[in-house]
Amino acid sequence: MEKLYEGKAKIIYSTEDPEILLTHFKDDATAFNAQKRGTITEKGAINCRISSALFQLLENQGLATHYLDQPTPQQMRVKSVTILPLEVVVRNIAAGSLCRETGLEQGTILPFPLVEFYYKKDELGDPILTRDRILILNLASLNQLEQLQTKALAINTHLKTFFSQCGITLVDFKLEFGLDKEGNLLLADEISPDTCRLWDQNEPDPEARVMDKDRFRQDLGKVENAYQQVQTRILSQLQLTTKES
Amino acid sequence: MEKLYEGKAKIIYSTEDPEILLTHFKDDATAFNAQKRGTITEKGAINCRISSALFQLLENQGLATHYLDQPTPQQMRVKSVTILPLEVVVRNIAAGSLCRETGLEQGTILPFPLVEFYYKKDELGDPILTRDRILILNLASLNQLEQLQTKALAINTHLKTFFSQCGITLVDFKLEFGLDKEGNLLLADEISPDTCRLWDQNEPDPEARVMDKDRFRQDLGKVENAYQQVQTRILSQLQLTTKES
Ligand SMILES: Nc1ncnc2c1ncn2[C@@H]1O[C@H](COP(=O)(O)OP(=O)(O)OP(=O)(O)O)[C@@H](O)[C@H]1O
Ligand SMILES: Nc1ncnc2c1ncn2[C@@H]1O[C@H](COP(=O)(O)OP(=O)(O)OP(=O)(O)O)[C@@H](O)[C@H]1O
Ligand SMILES: [Mg+2]
Ligand SMILES: [Mg+2]
Repeated sequence: MEKLYEGKAKIIYSTEDPEILLTHFKDDATAFNAQKRGTITEKGAINCRISSALFQLLENQGLATHYLDQPTPQQMRVKSVTILPLEVVVRNIAAGSLCRETGLEQGTILPFPLVEFYYKKDELGDPILTRDRILILNLASLNQLEQLQTKALAINTHLKTFFSQCGITLVDFKLEFGLDKEGNLLLADEISPDTCRLWDQNEPDPEARVMDKDRFRQDLGKVENAYQQVQTRILSQLQLTTKES
Repeated sequence: MEKLYEGKAKIIYSTEDPEILLTHFKDDATAFNAQKRGTITEKGAINCRISSALFQLLENQGLATHYLDQPTPQQMRVKSVTILPLEVVVRNIAAGSLCRETGLEQGTILPFPLVEFYYKKDELGDPILTRDRILILNLASLNQLEQLQTKALAINTHLKTFFSQCGITLVDFKLEFGLDKEGNLLLADEISPDTCRLWDQNEPDPEARVMDKDRFRQDLGKVENAYQQVQTRILSQLQLTTKES
C-alpha cells in the first residue's frame, strides 16, 4: 500500500489491485483555498461514514459511483478513476459565492436547481467556468458536459428528498466526477458536511441552522456537534427506511 | 436639451423627441472599474467617428442599431432604448480576464468565437454570468439570450472582416444592447478602441501592436496615436469600399 496523494481532506493509497484505491479521511479542515486551517474532532470518521451511506443510497437509485466499501471507520475503498478537473456544484438555494457574484440574497430559493462548473485549479482560485470555457479548455467534451448536468440533477433530486426526510435542507453541494478505464463517468470524491451546505429544517435562526463547514469557515462554533448531528440523522433515517422495506 | 446621465465616457442628453437621445463622447478615460483615471486627447471625437462608421456598416448589413446620425464631431444622435444590464463580450483571441480566469495564454486563437455575458453592475465588479444566472436574475429572457448570441456572432463576423481589411486583428470587444418601445433588441452604446481589443496585423511585437485602451490601462504610451491610427485606417478603408461600389 503506497501513499499516492495527500490532499487537504483525504489521503489516497494504492492497493494490490491497480483499479482500486483506498481513501483515508482526515480530521484536518481547511477553508478559503487553505488560508484557514484547523481540525474538526472525528471529522474523518464522520465524513467517511456519511459519504459511504450517500454513495450507497445513490447506487441503489442506479447512479454509478466510485464507492466499493468501508473497511475501517476512516477508510473507504473506491474504484480508481481519472478525476475531471471540474467541481460540479448544484444549488437549490442562494448562498456563498453565488450571492457575492450576483447580489442575490442569501437564502433565496432558486426557481430551478442551478448546475455550475468551477475549475479545480487552486492557482486560479477555482473560478466559475461557462460551458464554452470548459470546451475551449478541453476539460470535458460536450457529451460529457451533458452527462454531468443530467447526473448532477438526478443526484440532487435523490439527495434533496433524503435530506428532507432527515429534517435537513440541502442548500447546495459540490461533486467531483471521474472516468473509469472504460470511459464511464462515475461520481467520485466525497459527499459530506465539508462539501454540502445543510440547514436544519426546523431552525429559523440563520446561524443556528447551519450544519456544515460554514460553521468552521465563519467561526460559528459547535462544529463537531453539527457534523455528528448530520451523521446521526442520516443513519437513523436509513435504519427507518430499511425497517419499512 | 436636458442632461439625463453622465457616465465615465459619455454624457446623455434628451432631445425634443422623447424617442431620440443625444450622446456626447468625452475625452475622459477610466480603467479597472474607474480606479485609474485620465484623459486621451481627441478621444471623444475619434470614438464618436469610429462608432458612427461601424454602426452604419452594421446597419448596411441588416443589423439594427440605435444609430441615427452624427450632428457634430463629438455627438451622436441615437434611438432611446432600455439598456439590458449585460455586457456582451465576443472573443476571437484570448486576452484580459479570460486569460486570468482560465490560465489560457494571451494571444491563443480560440477554436470558435466565445460569446460571454458580464453583469453591468459596478458594485459587484462586473462579474461574468452564466446563461442560467442571467435567467435566475431575470436580466434577459431565454429568447432574448438566444437573440443576443446570434446578433453578437453576426456582428463579430462583419467587424472581423472589416477590421482585417484595415490591417487590424479584432481580438475581442464589448457590446451593449437595448430594447426600443416595440421590444426590438438594438445594438447600442459604442464600438471604439475603448471597447475593443485591436492589434496591428503586421506588428509582431506584443506591446507595439496594441491599438486600443490597453495602451492606457497598461501605460504603454502613444495612446492618442493608436486611437488616431484606428480612425484613419477605418475611414480610408470605407472610402476605398465606397469608390469600388
Ligand atoms: N475514485 C477516485 N480516484 C482517483 N482520485 C480520486 C477519487 N476520488 C477522489 N479523488 C481525488 O483524490 C483527492 C482527494 O483528496 P482531497 O479531497 O483531500 O483533495 P483536496 O485537498 O480537496 O485537493 P484537490 O481536490 O484540489 O486535489 C482529490 O484530488 C480527489 O479529486
Ligand atoms: N441608445 C441608448 N439609449 C439609452 N441609453 C444608452 C444608449 N446607448 C448607451 N446608453 C447608456 O448610456 C451610458 C453611456 O455612458 P458611459 O459609456 O459613459 O457609461 P459608463 O460610464 O460606461 O457607465 P455605465 O455603462 O456603467 O452606466 C451607458 O449607461 C449606456 O448603457
Ligand atoms: Mg477535496
Ligand atoms: Mg460605457
